Amino acid sequence: MNWGKKDLLGISELSKEEILFILDSTESFKDISKRDIKKVPTLRGKTVITLFYEPSTRTRTSFEIAAKRLSADTINISADTSSYIKGETLKDTARNLESMNPDAIIIRHTMPGAPHMLARIIGSSVINGGDGAHEHPTQALLDLYTIREKKGQLDGLKIVIVGDIAHSRVARSNIFALRHFDTEIVCSGPPTMLPPHIETLGVKREYDLNKAVRNADVIMMLRIQKERGGTSFIPSTREYSTLFGLKKEHIEKAKQDVIIMHPGPMNRGIEISDEVADGPHSVILDQVENGVAVRMAVLYLLIGRES
Amino acid sequence: MNWGKKDLLGISELSKEEILFILDSTESFKDISKRDIKKVPTLRGKTVITLFYEPSTRTRTSFEIAAKRLSADTINISADTSSYIKGETLKDTARNLESMNPDAIIIRHTMPGAPHMLARIIGSSVINGGDGAHEHPTQALLDLYTIREKKGQLDGLKIVIVGDIAHSRVARSNIFALRHFDTEIVCSGPPTMLPPHIETLGVKREYDLNKAVRNADVIMMLRIQKERGGTSFIPSTREYSTLFGLKKEHIEKAKQDVIIMHPGPMNRGIEISDEVADGPHSVILDQVENGVAVRMAVLYLLIGRES
Amino acid sequence: MNWGKKDLLGISELSKEEILFILDSTESFKDISKRDIKKVPTLRGKTVITLFYEPSTRTRTSFEIAAKRLSADTINISADTSSYIKGETLKDTARNLESMNPDAIIIRHTMPGAPHMLARIIGSSVINGGDGAHEHPTQALLDLYTIREKKGQLDGLKIVIVGDIAHSRVARSNIFALRHFDTEIVCSGPPTMLPPHIETLGVKREYDLNKAVRNADVIMMLRIQKERGGTSFIPSTREYSTLFGLKKEHIEKAKQDVIIMHPGPMNRGIEISDEVADGPHSVILDQVENGVAVRMAVLYLLIGRES
Repeated sequence: MNWGKKDLLGISELSKEEILFILDSTESFKDISKRDIKKVPTLRGKTVITLFYEPSTRTRTSFEIAAKRLSADTINISADTSSYIKGETLKDTARNLESMNPDAIIIRHTMPGAPHMLARIIGSSVINGGDGAHEHPTQALLDLYTIREKKGQLDGLKIVIVGDIAHSRVARSNIFALRHFDTEIVCSGPPTMLPPHIETLGVKREYDLNKAVRNADVIMMLRIQKERGGTSFIPSTREYSTLFGLKKEHIEKAKQDVIIMHPGPMNRGIEISDEVADGPHSVILDQVENGVAVRMAVLYLLIGRES
Repeated sequence: MNWGKKDLLGISELSKEEILFILDSTESFKDISKRDIKKVPTLRGKTVITLFYEPSTRTRTSFEIAAKRLSADTINISADTSSYIKGETLKDTARNLESMNPDAIIIRHTMPGAPHMLARIIGSSVINGGDGAHEHPTQALLDLYTIREKKGQLDGLKIVIVGDIAHSRVARSNIFALRHFDTEIVCSGPPTMLPPHIETLGVKREYDLNKAVRNADVIMMLRIQKERGGTSFIPSTREYSTLFGLKKEHIEKAKQDVIIMHPGPMNRGIEISDEVADGPHSVILDQVENGVAVRMAVLYLLIGRES
Repeated sequence: MNWGKKDLLGISELSKEEILFILDSTESFKDISKRDIKKVPTLRGKTVITLFYEPSTRTRTSFEIAAKRLSADTINISADTSSYIKGETLKDTARNLESMNPDAIIIRHTMPGAPHMLARIIGSSVINGGDGAHEHPTQALLDLYTIREKKGQLDGLKIVIVGDIAHSRVARSNIFALRHFDTEIVCSGPPTMLPPHIETLGVKREYDLNKAVRNADVIMMLRIQKERGGTSFIPSTREYSTLFGLKKEHIEKAKQDVIIMHPGPMNRGIEISDEVADGPHSVILDQVENGVAVRMAVLYLLIGRES
């Protein structure tokens, strides 16, 4: 296969082949971060800008490390400290940055669709680093990579996603990606956190976490967004924790080799218990490690090949 | 010509020959940002510090990209997050940074003359990235470069500068630069924004924008500094926009091949209308692109040649 | 000698031989920052993260320059802007960063012992960039390097440390380092700033600065931490300045070739007078310059040798 897209805006725009192509490309980059000299000249002389309108050290750091290990120059712009914001439209900001001839702009924005708008008006590659409650494609790609790495395949799996599905870009991107495969996707959470027509996305709804996790191959926990008012959809974090916090008793109901995922940062004791987060089924740190490799692959595919 | 100055502090300190030398040097750097591998080893092993006491992602990013494409190492220091500020004088900050042996320090400061003070006490090259309402030399240089690129020359032009001339370092630096050439410079804006003795700078005053723009070759709009209380000099932004916002009707009064400039970020609908900002006469994005090239040239001239 | 430690957490954990080994290694790095091309490929392909939970441009810049001159890739994370903080434990942050395979993490934290906790749970090298009132090992190392550079040796010296000894990590690390040598260490400051059992650290106590400085070879001033409520231990900064601010009269009581040190940033007119800070005995800027070299040596020893 030959990669043809300029941008990575959302999983919903990728074909199954494209998703698999990114996962396959990731293999060859994973090894680089384990070497003594963690650097290849692939993106030498390329300029990669991170433009973050929402704070996120985690994702920014992962992209920045990925770019630097490929020898790209990186420029960080955060909206907090950015004069770009003052009275300037995102469109003007985008065009201005474009005029400095960057090769890729990684944008995180509170507004769903912001990366798509950017991609339409500029010629540089645009990577969606999370747009509102819409999509977070590299998170889904690193999740799929991790599942495939641990399970050997993506077909034939029961995957349970637990938490605030309605407001989670991580959930959305993962659902878009996973439904290309022969998977059973079950969403669990309080009624206020499960979107009304969720079944149209090809997933099942199960309010009882104890039932949801039965025979699960993968349990993917979502973060309660305490800082974004995410707790307003639940009576209390204590009740949430009682009903939807993942504990050892749930693991016992799942398949013996179930893997536990979390996009981080974790609220320990709320959506996940210590013994699960740190237990033998947790692949949470593998997700972080694979995140760098997936982002290296994405950068390579978008801007690293001969033009 | 041979470049002899250690610093770039203001246009007022440059001779016509020095200005032209920087513009001529810029030519050879402009191409680099268009290449597949946007990087030359010119400043390898040089350390460039950006020391910004005023937030400005735009200028900082332009300098940072310029330095990185020349292979310099860049260090960003912003006063917001800087412990340098706490009880330490700018003089001590400067001497401390100097002790880390940087090659160039690019300083932006609210206090006019701050870069000059820095330059006197340290041996590293100092570049003024904007000091209060005093000077912004690289902005004027990129503006002149853009004018010459579009007009083929700097002589014989009518240039109109519109807005808060009194408080604009961009206007000042441009006036200092342009008066070396055979240009007619007309300043337009409300009386509160035109300095009393502006004519002593060799420019004309015209309160009526409709008259000012007649036969103009270049119209240079200034930004209304909403965030710096810049609106206190005008009754309302609506009235300002009515009288001094650049609209299509003004373009029609200017020369057919008039170019429209703006240092950014633009307040669309206030000092400039959408149809002008995005119209065929606008060279606003060329300015941004040329900004990187001009800054590469300046860095090269100051710290890149054999010592 | 062969360096065996993974981390640099505190001076209290170093033997005399290890301290001397770092100082000796520093020699070969000092020259690099004076060259025209200030860069060696020693740490090419290494990833160095600065993780600062307390703002400190000074120390962060010094480490960043040190890492870049060794060709390492650097990633800056500051807690102010960091989503790592939100509901995530330091332990999880550490493990997450570890999963991105950095070679070294330089941490500054308000909590004494934070770097030690980090070092225990991750495999990357951890460098303590200051932990609460506990230790600041690279500061002590650069201080010792500077003393040895100026005095030719570390033995046979009278060293006076003046200020808030009780709450100063700089004082603690210096005392831990200096007592390995045949030095007379005298601590001076108001009673509220001298810890009760300070003598158990092998130092003397002298409330009268005039007596303390007699025949001193080295006078090391500490910073009054105005921004951390450090003035609550003294009646007023004016009284502090009168009694413990270093002035020319003190210099005259010390040895003729006494050197004056200060970790910066200085509160001029409070703990140190202008004429002393800028006088011929001051080695304050040498400390800053040596700081880069010491940090290059530390980075080299921890992560730069063949594995």
